[in-house]
Amino acid sequence: MIIRSANEADQSQILAIVTPTLAAGETYAIARNLPASDILAYWLSPGHEVFVAEEEGHILGTYYLRANQAGGGAHVANCGYVTASAAQGKGVARAMCEHSLARARERGFRAMQFNHVVSTNQRAVALWQALGFAIVGTLPQAFHHPTHGYVDSYVMFRNL
Amino acid sequence: MIIRSANEADQSQILAIVTPTLAAGETYAIARNLPASDILAYWLSPGHEVFVAEEEGHILGTYYLRANQAGGGAHVANCGYVTASAAQGKGVARAMCEHSLARARERGFRAMQFNHVVSTNQRAVALWQALGFAIVGTLPQAFHHPTHGYVDSYVMFRNL
Repeated sequence: MIIRSANEADQSQILAIVTPTLAAGETYAIARNLPASDILAYWLSPGHEVFVAEEEGHILGTYYLRANQAGGGAHVANCGYVTASAAQGKGVARAMCEHSLARARERGFRAMQFNHVVSTNQRAVALWQALGFAIVGTLPQAFHHPTHGYVDSYVMFRNL
Repeated sequence: MIIRSANEADQSQILAIVTPTLAAGETYAIARNLPASDILAYWLSPGHEVFVAEEEGHILGTYYLRANQAGGGAHVANCGYVTASAAQGKGVARAMCEHSLARARERGFRAMQFNHVVSTNQRAVALWQALGFAIVGTLPQAFHHPTHGYVDSYVMFRNL
């Protein structure tokens, strides 16, 4: 598996990976019924640097890296990661997060923040903790989960 | 003082109030050198409901109300408030925040969250606490203050 910058030829595979995650609505605080053009416009926003994890020509996951805020907050990075459902459990998310930490350091960011990690997404919470992120805030019932109802979200943060 | 919806005729006064606050770069994690058109585009974003505090035809402050996130996070509101420098200390921010809490309730939001309250902005922190907000997270050195250097920011939250 290699992790490389996304290019235009990757768009259909990126869309195929991101769409079911957003539609499920369990992990991203983003509209669940976005049309394909809006999903691509969001994932490939001008301020997003986008990477893909690729194995033998197949894209297993994708992530974006951006500044979490502008002005006085521009030294803190933010990322979003999605792994293809067929590639779960193979360490794709871990590899992408490690890559993003290195890339963020390279770009001069001093820290990375996740704004809204849904507490029921236990696999992600544990992975980010294993990769050095701390829960620095709990947003009470800030996420409406399609099956669990109102659940807490975490703000997670680590220095670089 | 009344608080009312902003209209097109208010734009130049809104710009005159917001511009020095963003240029000072002490409280908003937003670029400090935005041109006027970008400041207005930001403050009057399509997703923002904008209000002004007015006294005898003069606008003393302005705020926007929006959903902090989409999808599963759309039930949490977010606001930004700016008081004209000449009107500091007259309770304008308190009146705007109280108005925004009522308006957010009216629109069906269940909570309000401030994502990035700079810790050195002690007057704001104390006011939000007095109005029922709790510090639910501390973002270590997440804000680069023009005179104090890297300082913490708070995530503040209250139910409605």
